[in-house]
Amino acid sequence: MNETRYTLQPIGWVESPLTDPELAPRQPDEGAPAAWLVLDPAVGAALRGLEPGSQVVVLTWLDRARRDVLEVHPRGDMSRPVAGVFCTRSPERPNPIGLHTVQITAIDGTRVGVRNLEALDQTPVLDIKPVLGPIDER
Amino acid sequence: MNETRYTLQPIGWVESPLTDPELAPRQPDEGAPAAWLVLDPAVGAALRGLEPGSQVVVLTWLDRARRDVLEVHPRGDMSRPVAGVFCTRSPERPNPIGLHTVQITAIDGTRVGVRNLEALDQTPVLDIKPVLGPIDER
Repeated sequence: MNETRYTLQPIGWVESPLTDPELAPRQPDEGAPAAWLVLDPAVGAALRGLEPGSQVVVLTWLDRARRDVLEVHPRGDMSRPVAGVFCTRSPERPNPIGLHTVQITAIDGTRVGVRNLEALDQTPVLDIKPVLGPIDER
Repeated sequence: MNETRYTLQPIGWVESPLTDPELAPRQPDEGAPAAWLVLDPAVGAALRGLEPGSQVVVLTWLDRARRDVLEVHPRGDMSRPVAGVFCTRSPERPNPIGLHTVQITAIDGTRVGVRNLEALDQTPVLDIKPVLGPIDER
């Protein structure tokens, strides 16, 4: 492997009732609860313009995932043939970045309430991006 | 800011005719060319099951972006009011991770051909994930 490395600095953390990886839903439409993104006040200016109702993509660092796994049984189902992790949403992958599309429900300072976030409590947050609308609305 | 840090290791690089940031399209449906993801052979097993025609999300590290910018004029248009970077797709943000939805056109060993990738030549690639279909197809 090439030896180049890059360094991530979390912008905040997830605050969620989800604490047990075994009970966490695999995808947001599979019963994920309401949660908060508790952001560092130092990045508060980057939130300017976000509003309740906005659809955003949240990127997280899945800090409890293994990074040396390249193939898995999809969804942990041993009856399914193994697949490369790049064909799955398994948290186990070389760079365990989580991708979550959520709706903002509240903004309280640098605390951002979200609906349908399937990330464990205390998961580091890396980024927030708008969901792109049609080309003529950009 | 909290002092926790995480380390990314690129899984490969973009090979693209896009070399000039000033000429690069801002979004994939704004004229992005065909490109290759040139992956490290060490992660080849993680590709197992990907096929031409698959829609995937590619995550990249926007290594030429500034990380200390929290507000921008959207799309570089000075006539638009500044917005927090989390409301925009600006490459300038605390963790400059690029998010690209592309279609795979070819797989040649660990070289993956893709359509509509708005990333500059030599951009590091971090991850590939499937676009999620309906809940009953997972």
